[in-house]
Amino acid sequence: MNDAVSHLDPALVQRFADIVGDRYALHAPDDIAPYLIEPRGLWHGRSQLVLRPGSVEEVSRILRLATETRTPVVPQSGNTGLVGAQVPDASGRQVVLSLSRLNRIREIDVQSNTVTAEAGVILQTLQQAADGVDRLFPLSLGAQGSCQIGGNLSSNAGGTNVLAYGNARELCLGVEVVLPTGEVFDDLRKLKKDNTGYDLKNLFVGAEGTLGVITAAVLKLFPKPKGREVAFVGLPSAEAALALFGAAGARAGSALTAFELIGKRPYDFTLAHASGVVRPLEGDWPWYVLTEISSGRSAEDARALIEDILSAAFDAEIIGDAVIASSLAQSSAFWNFRELLPEAQKPEGASIKHDISVPISSIPAFIERAEKAVASVSPGARVVCFGHMGDGNLHYNISRPEGGDDHAFLDLYHAMNKAVHDVVRALDGSISAEHGIGQLKRDELIATAPPMAIDLMRRVKRAFDPAGIMNPGKVI
Amino acid sequence: MNDAVSHLDPALVQRFADIVGDRYALHAPDDIAPYLIEPRGLWHGRSQLVLRPGSVEEVSRILRLATETRTPVVPQSGNTGLVGAQVPDASGRQVVLSLSRLNRIREIDVQSNTVTAEAGVILQTLQQAADGVDRLFPLSLGAQGSCQIGGNLSSNAGGTNVLAYGNARELCLGVEVVLPTGEVFDDLRKLKKDNTGYDLKNLFVGAEGTLGVITAAVLKLFPKPKGREVAFVGLPSAEAALALFGAAGARAGSALTAFELIGKRPYDFTLAHASGVVRPLEGDWPWYVLTEISSGRSAEDARALIEDILSAAFDAEIIGDAVIASSLAQSSAFWNFRELLPEAQKPEGASIKHDISVPISSIPAFIERAEKAVASVSPGARVVCFGHMGDGNLHYNISRPEGGDDHAFLDLYHAMNKAVHDVVRALDGSISAEHGIGQLKRDELIATAPPMAIDLMRRVKRAFDPAGIMNPGKVI
Repeated sequence: MNDAVSHLDPALVQRFADIVGDRYALHAPDDIAPYLIEPRGLWHGRSQLVLRPGSVEEVSRILRLATETRTPVVPQSGNTGLVGAQVPDASGRQVVLSLSRLNRIREIDVQSNTVTAEAGVILQTLQQAADGVDRLFPLSLGAQGSCQIGGNLSSNAGGTNVLAYGNARELCLGVEVVLPTGEVFDDLRKLKKDNTGYDLKNLFVGAEGTLGVITAAVLKLFPKPKGREVAFVGLPSAEAALALFGAAGARAGSALTAFELIGKRPYDFTLAHASGVVRPLEGDWPWYVLTEISSGRSAEDARALIEDILSAAFDAEIIGDAVIASSLAQSSAFWNFRELLPEAQKPEGASIKHDISVPISSIPAFIERAEKAVASVSPGARVVCFGHMGDGNLHYNISRPEGGDDHAFLDLYHAMNKAVHDVVRALDGSISAEHGIGQLKRDELIATAPPMAIDLMRRVKRAFDPAGIMNPGKVI
Repeated sequence: MNDAVSHLDPALVQRFADIVGDRYALHAPDDIAPYLIEPRGLWHGRSQLVLRPGSVEEVSRILRLATETRTPVVPQSGNTGLVGAQVPDASGRQVVLSLSRLNRIREIDVQSNTVTAEAGVILQTLQQAADGVDRLFPLSLGAQGSCQIGGNLSSNAGGTNVLAYGNARELCLGVEVVLPTGEVFDDLRKLKKDNTGYDLKNLFVGAEGTLGVITAAVLKLFPKPKGREVAFVGLPSAEAALALFGAAGARAGSALTAFELIGKRPYDFTLAHASGVVRPLEGDWPWYVLTEISSGRSAEDARALIEDILSAAFDAEIIGDAVIASSLAQSSAFWNFRELLPEAQKPEGASIKHDISVPISSIPAFIERAEKAVASVSPGARVVCFGHMGDGNLHYNISRPEGGDDHAFLDLYHAMNKAVHDVVRALDGSISAEHGIGQLKRDELIATAPPMAIDLMRRVKRAFDPAGIMNPGKVI
């Protein structure tokens, strides 16, 4: 039905502008430009209009008009997504709906351990607000200084704290959603238990704005840990990392708040290319783990626990070397080293990236099989493997062969994706563990997911957005 | 379209019977009787046919035929549900589909900490299988000796371990579902992170068999705690219980594995009517808490932690008395006391029960307001309040006035429900925290939920079950 509209006529543009006021309806190419391109520059869309509503009521009126006129709408919050979900297509017919002015923290309830925040609240702002009332909002990822809660929920964001606290979905207790018709679905509840019908909340979370627009949410807060200890560990193999993970989890339970796997190559790239990093361990190892223990009891308790875990792992000859950060500064340095891994890959030339997950027990098998698959597509290509091992989630990136040609390597993009994702599928894994589908993986999802799953998703899409105006061309 | 069928004709009955074989197609009234009435005897349905398929393929063929012939189907597993979701209606036209023969544990993966179990596996059997590989499957509730996993998931069961481990939904990583058309949706994945489209799994979990039939699921396992300590605490007020919960959570984090609130009246009823119980505390208190600490480290660690928490609470004058169980036998006795609360209410005459949740911070306000609401409906009626305070979930039951008439009191059923639930709604709570909707609360849900929520649920129902054969008359 979108085809009925071949362009945005000026009268319609003005009707949209009247809803938010001219000041918040952007038309000038320079004003619009930042909303049309995403961080990596992979997706560059067109649009004649960016709307920046200042209230849920304005969002409602925008979507009502969009449905009435069959105008496609692309919701956008922090514009940090990596799969192009927040960028309009090239038609120029899509209106960008920016949620960034809906940036109020509506309430913090310290006894219920909840915060009610609007879609445009920046993640770091929310983390700081929680910290200010002696609570932890655990969602944590590289873009936290600019990404916004609406996008975090719409993409079901993950990050480095999923292991103990869950992903964005698991941190969300309730949502406020504006439906394509403009109707507001108010499900802003603080309840840990509610069995009154179908779970609608989790349909909107992770839907990348294709079913409605999340305008606010109730999110979980946690007691702030009294002690945190970070260790950098060297290991002989991925199997050893898996054994360490099992032993640490059995002993620490949810006090094990991070378990990041780092291959030798990204480790070496970071030492070579990142500025101001310090080598975490003396010797070289095939694999490294950055692990964190958080204690609600005391700093001493966290220290004792991480020492127990590591010394037991030494005795069992699971690990080869380990350094426990001796200061906050060193802890930050270890985390900084981890955060710099993606950046440090760039000087090595073109890369093809994957965001995959497999059952945790299959991680060593994945690493072994995927390496062969990569070599079969591009002999000499360099595997850069790191990620959230505790979640079964690896960022499995491939750098072109040393001295190879960037363009020639990027021509292998689809072949490389297929080779790696075939291994993922053979191990019952996921081709998008935490970044989502957006435009980047939509065709592959439709081509390779069980047809039944695609059919059910399409039924949901039709049921919630019959006019097809919500972020068309994304996900499904 | 169901109205097109006014009865089950013998030829159709035989076509269904041929799918499972005559031995597993029950017709005789005596054979069928146990499937038509639920534990409390509130719902007594009729049916001419109970089918007991032995494979997913048979379930698939049954539903395909049901859709083809517009025959309503009522899925049933352990038949322990408390809202009538698993019982057919009085028409006699509904076929009961028993999942109890699908009772295989397909796989346990100790490294991934997952178990893949079929719908008919009895909860306790699954707990024991996990225990056998040194893991914990934490879902735990009164009916665990007979309830089955399919029903636990379809009702999103809660219980006493939700506080640290989550409800059935949070314990489920993947599902296998037979859709009304007979198509099998295989989403049996072990992944903690998977952002490939809409969250379909959580639509089926908690849908009470109205969208499809869950035939198997992948469930989370946890390391078995090395130490567990249980304490029975006496407190001056519900506010004090809330303060203790906050302090215990801040210190223990997810090592706080149970926090059950018990009012003086259910405590006294249990002492008076339950056989073989021992008084947990010397003195009398307005409120009691049964709390449990579990440690992955050691028994000594659990002991030290619970002692820290309780002694700090004494010093802060939050609690009045506390006994830490000195043996496994005493721990069991404390838990047994908790489990006997509902039973011990029966000798006090007719009762009207509620399964509610409110934001945890609102629990004292709920208790205060609800008590007034109850008195306004039935002066002298006795509030029996206990439940999973850590989840904001109270079983708020009302016994008739002392010496009052049972029937006269039960005539107040709807007035009492309304009075209590009005307080729940005023506090943004839920009228069904863990038991579900079924037949019991369907009319109230439709009448009192936000119309938008009901509309969206109906869209989902139509999208998944256009023929309307899946458990009609339940939930929505």
